[in-house]
Formats: sequence, structure tokens, C-alpha cells
Amino acid sequence: MRQQPGRVTSDLTISADGYSAGLDQTEKRPFGDDGGDGTGEKLHAWMFDAPDENRPEIERMAAAQTYIMGRNMFGPVRGDWDRPWNGWWGDEPPFHAPVFVLTHHAREPQPMGGGTTFHFVTDGIESALAQAHAAAVGGDVAVQGGATTVNQYLAAGLIDELRLHIAPFTLGAGTRLFDGVPPLNLEQVHARATGLVTHVTYRVLS
Amino acid sequence: MRQQPGRVTSDLTISADGYSAGLDQTEKRPFGDDGGDGTGEKLHAWMFDAPDENRPEIERMAAAQTYIMGRNMFGPVRGDWDRPWNGWWGDEPPFHAPVFVLTHHAREPQPMGGGTTFHFVTDGIESALAQAHAAAVGGDVAVQGGATTVNQYLAAGLIDELRLHIAPFTLGAGTRLFDGVPPLNLEQVHARATGLVTHVTYRVLS
Repeated sequence: MRQQPGRVTSDLTISADGYSAGLDQTEKRPFGDDGGDGTGEKLHAWMFDAPDENRPEIERMAAAQTYIMGRNMFGPVRGDWDRPWNGWWGDEPPFHAPVFVLTHHAREPQPMGGGTTFHFVTDGIESALAQAHAAAVGGDVAVQGGATTVNQYLAAGLIDELRLHIAPFTLGAGTRLFDGVPPLNLEQVHARATGLVTHVTYRVLS
Repeated sequence: MRQQPGRVTSDLTISADGYSAGLDQTEKRPFGDDGGDGTGEKLHAWMFDAPDENRPEIERMAAAQTYIMGRNMFGPVRGDWDRPWNGWWGDEPPFHAPVFVLTHHAREPQPMGGGTTFHFVTDGIESALAQAHAAAVGGDVAVQGGATTVNQYLAAGLIDELRLHIAPFTLGAGTRLFDGVPPLNLEQVHARATGLVTHVTYRVLS
């Protein structure tokens, strides 16, 4: 019997003007000019400064069985894998699951501590999703980011549920959610605000 | 004794990607390509289809003592006032207060039914705000829209409180909130969701 695939979700923290990261990412500043120190700490203050208040949203993010991310979310290396890079997250990344990294440059799978393995997918977003579904054996797949990757999946009609976490500042430039995505009809299925963020969950209708 | 000026607020209904109106406004389609019939009915479904559920937000919008709006929000006439136009709202507009319309083309004040008078301001946003404050005699002034006008006031640091009403769809093109506005720090002072919209109120810090 074939397993039914799970849902495809995406959690993205954005500024009030829709940016998930600023311009000019570097190794020391994975979020670039993000209105803070480049580590995304201002965007993600809701997770790190007020985890108790935002516990349901944090737990829901971690409920996915597998993850998909873009090359820039994985790291600052461009082109060939010509220097060692195993992600921004140290020896034990917080995913504890297979993570499928979109890239144009082939690389062997990279097992990490705590159950995370990075798989590198060179044949496109549909292939990455098929592999992520297979590895999730019926569980949810999360398109982790960044916005460029989320936009590709949205444009292809492949995301079921989009969970936005809107932080109270604007960036003015960077990588923007919905850029280049044809108009979408959404159903607002849940929303609530805590001190530092507004959470909105949309079901993507078309 | 001089009256202290009231607050400057702005209520704006936007799509999930930040647009308050689509492209190609015409006389029959004041909101242009707005994902619906051009009348803004899809953006504003929360007000018209679910007024009871959204009563506090609707009442708060009407609490301003005077209003400021851009020329395009007032009407489709461009250049000189070479044909009769008294707004989109018929003989008794819903403002019941002085409304200051930003324009490059002088025109005598236009009194309407129900207490609304349109005043035409040709010497810029600061002048319009000073006149609106004077007429509000200590009450709040609302920058009514569209987004281009709100953006001008935000960029000039003249808005105290921004109240967004985020509708569950994306437009992909149009007049966008925050376009051209330098990065802003906001304080999220209130937020709640109802069936058709997410309401977020920000105090503009800088």
C-alpha cells in the first residue's frame, strides 16, 4: 500500500513589509542587512526572547518530518562546494530530520549530529519535494526558506499551508515573500498576536 | 491657549503582499485590478460582509475628526479639474468631517451632504496636515490613503499609529504600502484576527 503524502507547509518570519532577509548575506551575517546584527535576531526575537508565549507556533514548526531549503539558506558558499560548509547550525542542527538542499552543484549527503542529514538535490524543486515526501512517509514536509525558495514552491502551487510570523519593523530591501508569485487566493485559517509578532496561517487555495 | 494637536493615524486595508489597490484605476474601477471587480470589495470584505465581527476596528476608523487623502483616492481625474468630480462616495460621503485632498491643481472647497467638505491643498503634505490638525481641534487626524499618500507621510515621520487590515489574498502588483519608505521601527500595540482579516496596529517609533 502506498502512503498518502503529508501536507506541505512553510513557516516564514517576515518584516511588516514582507522581507525574510536583508541584502548582502555573508558568512558572519546569514540574514544580511536585516535591521540588526545580520543573524536574524531582530526578525526572530519572538522565538528567542519570548519562547513561552509563542510555544504553539514554535512546536508546530518542529512538527514537520522533513525539510526543504534553498542554497542560500544552507550557507554562503556559491558555485562549487570548494570549501567545507555544513550549514549555519553547528554539529547538531535543529532539524533532527532529513533536509533537502536545492543546489546546482552535486554533493554527497552530509550526516550531522542529532538525526539531521543534508541531502543535496540538483534536479529541481519537484524532485526535492518528491524525495522529501518519500522520506517523511506520510508526515508533513516543511519548505523552510528562504523566501526565494518559498516563492518558487508557491508559484508552482506546491504549498498547502503558509504560516507567516510578522515582525514589527520594516526592512525596505532584501528577499521578499511573494515576489514573482502570481496572485494567490488564501484562506485565513488561524491568526493570533503575541507581544512581538503577529502569526497568520493561510491555506493556499489557488 | 493653544490646543495640543491630536494623533495622526492611518487605517489601510492591504493584501497579504502589501497592496492597497491594483493597477489601472478607472472611474468604474477605483481600486483597479484589485483581484475582484475593481471596487475594492474583495479587499474590504471584512468591513462589508462581516461588520459585526469587525465593529471595533470600523468604529475606530470613524473616530478621526479630519481626513487627508491623495488625489487618486479622491477620484480618477488627472491634471486640471476639467470635469465635475466630487469623489466616489455620492452626495453624502462617509467622512462627515473636513477632508483635505492633496493635489497640484487648485480648487475651491466642495461642501457635501452629511458634514463632509473636501478642501484641496496644493502646497504639500505638511500644509495639509497643519490644516487637518487645525480643523480637528485636538482630535485625531486620519491619513486615509491611498498607499502612496500613506507612504509619503510615513517617509516624513508624520504618522503616529498605523492600523493595517490584512486581507487573505495576494495581488502581485499595484500601489504598495511601505514602497520607498526608509526602514521603520514599529511597536505592535494591538492585533487580532477575525474570519476574513488580520488587524494589526503599530505605533511608529522611528
